[in-house]
Amino acid sequence: MDILAICGSLRAGSYNRGLLRAVAEAVPEGVSVEIAEIRGIPVFDEDLEAQGWPEAVAALRARAHAADGLVLGTPEYNYGIAGPMKNAFDWLSRPERGGHAAPRAGGGYAVPRNPFMRKPCALLGAALGLGGTIRAQLA
Amino acid sequence: MDILAICGSLRAGSYNRGLLRAVAEAVPEGVSVEIAEIRGIPVFDEDLEAQGWPEAVAALRARAHAADGLVLGTPEYNYGIAGPMKNAFDWLSRPERGGHAAPRAGGGYAVPRNPFMRKPCALLGAALGLGGTIRAQLA
Repeated sequence: MDILAICGSLRAGSYNRGLLRAVAEAVPEGVSVEIAEIRGIPVFDEDLEAQGWPEAVAALRARAHAADGLVLGTPEYNYGIAGPMKNAFDWLSRPERGGHAAPRAGGGYAVPRNPFMRKPCALLGAALGLGGTIRAQLA
Repeated sequence: MDILAICGSLRAGSYNRGLLRAVAEAVPEGVSVEIAEIRGIPVFDEDLEAQGWPEAVAALRARAHAADGLVLGTPEYNYGIAGPMKNAFDWLSRPERGGHAAPRAGGGYAVPRNPFMRKPCALLGAALGLGGTIRAQLA
């Protein structure tokens, strides 16, 4: 089982990256955890997206598509998900070929794939306060 | 009265920027509305912050400090504030000299200023859907 862990903090001494390292050490045999960074992912811009996925976005999307499951570890800022993680999440969750769900000939809708579709995700976070990023996780 | 409007979308044809332009046209005499862009604000990084405010961050913070009030217009992504706006907001809301509230000699705490402190803020958003960014505004 191949798990991709994404760290929502860019700080070198990030507590969340430390927590993800602890996750990687705690998994049983047969499970691997790779810790991905969001550094290099630009601030989201739909005009930029129209020119194709930026390199760092394409790489993280491909890695997330390939994984069996995701673990998202992020700081909480302003009662919500840290901006850098929300920004990366917004890039990752875009449908594969842009646009919205399209009606299918046989009925129903063809929803373009994104890397979170039908994929188990775990949320966690580390913080100095007692809240422990719970509001980021709720958001 | 000097109002700073901040657009949370980088898209050239942003509906939210259009809405902010409509706000600027609708205000009575004696009120000015300047529409600020968040382009150039980097993805938040506490290590980067420790080296001083990046130029685009310093400029937007100074402009927000000087304004009498703020209007924030942002798209909604993934049931929340668009990543680019959340990222800009996280930079803007950092206390002026870093760190946390410090105890004062006379009692109480000296909370470092940030550009949102004791400043009226309005939230709005434009979208093609019926939700009209309400979940971004709630977040």
